Amino acid sequence: MSTPIYLGVIGVGGVGSAFIKQLAHLPNAPKLILLARSSQTLLAPAPSYSPAIPAADWKTAIETPSLTTSGALSPEEIASYLSAAPGRSILVDNTSDVALASSYPVFLRQGISIVTPNKKGFSSDLSLWKDIFASAAQGKALVYHESTVGAGLPVLSTLRDLVATGDQVTRIEGVFSGTLSFLFNTFAPASGSSSAKWSQVVAQAKELGYTEPDPRDDLNGMDVARKLTILARIAGLEVQSPASFPVESLIPAELASLPSTSDGIAQFMARLPEFDGQMTAVKEAAEQVGKVVRFVGSIDVGTKEVRVGLQQFDKDSAIAGLKGSDNIISFYTRRYGNNPLIVQGAGAGGDVTAMGVTADLLKVIERLH
Amino acid sequence: MSTPIYLGVIGVGGVGSAFIKQLAHLPNAPKLILLARSSQTLLAPAPSYSPAIPAADWKTAIETPSLTTSGALSPEEIASYLSAAPGRSILVDNTSDVALASSYPVFLRQGISIVTPNKKGFSSDLSLWKDIFASAAQGKALVYHESTVGAGLPVLSTLRDLVATGDQVTRIEGVFSGTLSFLFNTFAPASGSSSAKWSQVVAQAKELGYTEPDPRDDLNGMDVARKLTILARIAGLEVQSPASFPVESLIPAELASLPSTSDGIAQFMARLPEFDGQMTAVKEAAEQVGKVVRFVGSIDVGTKEVRVGLQQFDKDSAIAGLKGSDNIISFYTRRYGNNPLIVQGAGAGGDVTAMGVTADLLKVIERLH
Repeated sequence: MSTPIYLGVIGVGGVGSAFIKQLAHLPNAPKLILLARSSQTLLAPAPSYSPAIPAADWKTAIETPSLTTSGALSPEEIASYLSAAPGRSILVDNTSDVALASSYPVFLRQGISIVTPNKKGFSSDLSLWKDIFASAAQGKALVYHESTVGAGLPVLSTLRDLVATGDQVTRIEGVFSGTLSFLFNTFAPASGSSSAKWSQVVAQAKELGYTEPDPRDDLNGMDVARKLTILARIAGLEVQSPASFPVESLIPAELASLPSTSDGIAQFMARLPEFDGQMTAVKEAAEQVGKVVRFVGSIDVGTKEVRVGLQQFDKDSAIAGLKGSDNIISFYTRRYGNNPLIVQGAGAGGDVTAMGVTADLLKVIERLH
Repeated sequence: MSTPIYLGVIGVGGVGSAFIKQLAHLPNAPKLILLARSSQTLLAPAPSYSPAIPAADWKTAIETPSLTTSGALSPEEIASYLSAAPGRSILVDNTSDVALASSYPVFLRQGISIVTPNKKGFSSDLSLWKDIFASAAQGKALVYHESTVGAGLPVLSTLRDLVATGDQVTRIEGVFSGTLSFLFNTFAPASGSSSAKWSQVVAQAKELGYTEPDPRDDLNGMDVARKLTILARIAGLEVQSPASFPVESLIPAELASLPSTSDGIAQFMARLPEFDGQMTAVKEAAEQVGKVVRFVGSIDVGTKEVRVGLQQFDKDSAIAGLKGSDNIISFYTRRYGNNPLIVQGAGAGGDVTAMGVTADLLKVIERLH
């Protein structure tokens, strides 16, 4: 009775493989007809698009003789394969690929809905953002990307509900990076005290696997800037790109130009202690006024001011009290008054990010049926 | 192209009138064809169901000669009027009426979707809960009731997403009553101290309009018990009714039987100071172990234990740090590990409750189209 739904999935990394696991456990899951990783694509054979790829057993599915395999397909080839399926189709992009994200309009105009944790499509040039949503309207397709901010936390859906119901969002503020959350919660805890130097805390986070392979990819604030770009646009601000507002980098200028090779990274880590004095000064300046320092992003909707960087917070504030590598996002609105609507919890990790993707997928399926 | 959608709204109290205001500002709002309050019903005339009732101007719409007015209609009459509309229809129940809630299955079986902040249908006998969702499936109608817990905060949607994507929710815990939040945040603040007696804090809350007209309707814990019943059921527990688990009442036994008349309420407030010693003892017992006392609800999914009552919390915990009359809800799950997913903010008030209703309405419309 209801429209059959077909699914293409790209990416089998940390989030991708967690997603496929969740998909395999869904009752009435849509038919998985395409599964691609960098150099390989697995396809249910056209024109019947049957048999589907067994999600529970995708690693060995490649050996199933009734499935088709090929090398990497272009976005256009994937779109044309999916749009010819005998029903509605959905592309789940579990990569962080900018080229694929730039092709979302191609998929959407052909009626293929998009579900993704990939920030690139929504945080690059404003023209791409506009093209994505115009193409979705044109192709009567849907775009859900909850996991691009705060992983599985209900951040974008909450903001969209506030806006759609006519609330006036005045300010959005929060800690949007699990890595930077951990660094500052450890370096400058709100209760108790820590004698660890900044470079030691960075080294510890790197060892625990909390940072990117090159910690400068966290310390430069760009990941936070991309998330702020997405939030600001949903709140109605026409932010041109993550480069169009001030982003404070925590990379000492002297170390910024070291190459991103393992050698360059090792040099960066070795020389970071030379700059501990700067971060200690920042920490102590906050302590002298009874506060703690945190790396936050904020959007002031009225003044259209978006910024990413260090800020001081009262020790009994929710941001100061954050634990571990949690994210926190506060929405100040006309209806909520002085006490913001707050969402808090793990904002990174394969399972919780995949959860946001799976939840989005279920919503798209409900709307396409 | 898309199915026309017709809307019936019952209740024009605090939440109801805020909802109608939000409805009036929606782009592409569905046609309002029925608006009812206790003794009066305004209808768009059948069989054309046109003209619709102007939401922006509903108070004077009653004088519009092309609309039909009548006295109170029965749920069956309303269902039959709505189901005969030339499209899909939605009933928004902005009352707290138990009789109307008991009739949801009648609406749903006729294909009329339900959107409501009315807790009664979802927190009474388990048989009604089951009948509601079975009837919805039978009539291919939808039921959204986000505002029954935490008003406009994303509580139920978050829990449903966790469950639907296969996470294991192990524990839900929180402050679910704005009134009780205010009472304890004021009586036993986490930072600083208060010398106010319990009865003084209750009197202050009553004056500020934070309590029900009879404060015992807050202090008996039943509102929290109803919310816990709803959450527990979504988490998969077959809770028979809010009376089937322990609920601690803060009404001194000696004052429970005073009538709910204005005289009885006055007597209650006058005699409450006699029992201040009990609450002071509770507060001091917590202080002696460095904690504060809060009135919380909790669900342990594994042991199926649901309880509502006083509990002690560390002063630096999120629950202890709550401000004003905010709610806080923590979801502990397998995926989120030790640090729960937390939602916090105003959990009562006309505007934010109506926002939850309007957001639900928009989701139902998206799915019916």
